[in-house]
Amino acid sequence: MASKLVADCLFCKIIRGEIPSVKLLETATTFAFLDIGPLSEGHALVIPKFHAEKMHQLPDEFLADAMPVAKKIAMALGADNYNILQNNGRLAHQQVMHVHFHVIPKPSADKGLSMEWNAETADVERLKDLAKNMKL
Amino acid sequence: MASKLVADCLFCKIIRGEIPSVKLLETATTFAFLDIGPLSEGHALVIPKFHAEKMHQLPDEFLADAMPVAKKIAMALGADNYNILQNNGRLAHQQVMHVHFHVIPKPSADKGLSMEWNAETADVERLKDLAKNMKL
Repeated sequence: MASKLVADCLFCKIIRGEIPSVKLLETATTFAFLDIGPLSEGHALVIPKFHAEKMHQLPDEFLADAMPVAKKIAMALGADNYNILQNNGRLAHQQVMHVHFHVIPKPSADKGLSMEWNAETADVERLKDLAKNMKL
Repeated sequence: MASKLVADCLFCKIIRGEIPSVKLLETATTFAFLDIGPLSEGHALVIPKFHAEKMHQLPDEFLADAMPVAKKIAMALGADNYNILQNNGRLAHQQVMHVHFHVIPKPSADKGLSMEWNAETADVERLKDLAKNMKL
């Protein structure tokens, strides 16, 4: 459970206190603070104390705490509607290359996260083939 | 760690096997399968084996496994770019009222999750006041 932070990362610097942040809470593996570029009031970030660019590169012990911490924040915000979002890669809208989970209140249609949902209807046989070929 | 499922919920029925799904993996607390209305190929859902509408209503032990399971799926999909998304409440785009985490590959700009990011610039003193008033 040893933290792994690097010198040249904005979020590692925030965890170390080298760059100030409005901290919400901290555990052995996780640090949470308010986003200074919020999509809505209360927009928070939950970050593991382990430097990795993408979620799948984190050890499980640095992932286990992320949602329990996000839950505490959602409860403290008293948000009825909110989104949890974690972006991996530039194409997927990741801006800071240290894993972070957004907790984004959605108080009204014009505040918070706005999405388009262009769902397809899947062919079930194709899904079965895909699942069969995944190494899980 | 006892599961809590209800009779009249689509995802509880999928967990119990009463409605078929293309299952990816299952742990003591979590079930994962492919979305039949995908935003991109490999779009998966990770659901706790505990019926709750919103994330903050889940016991921590049913939240701890969600991201480690999502990680396994992301690795098996081999996705370089992907989003993890969990919507709470109709306003926040929740469709099925049983907590679910989306794993959505983003292979290209026109596939996967599309978002608008209308960020504000926060006043830091206001953020400090907000944090002070949150019961964490």
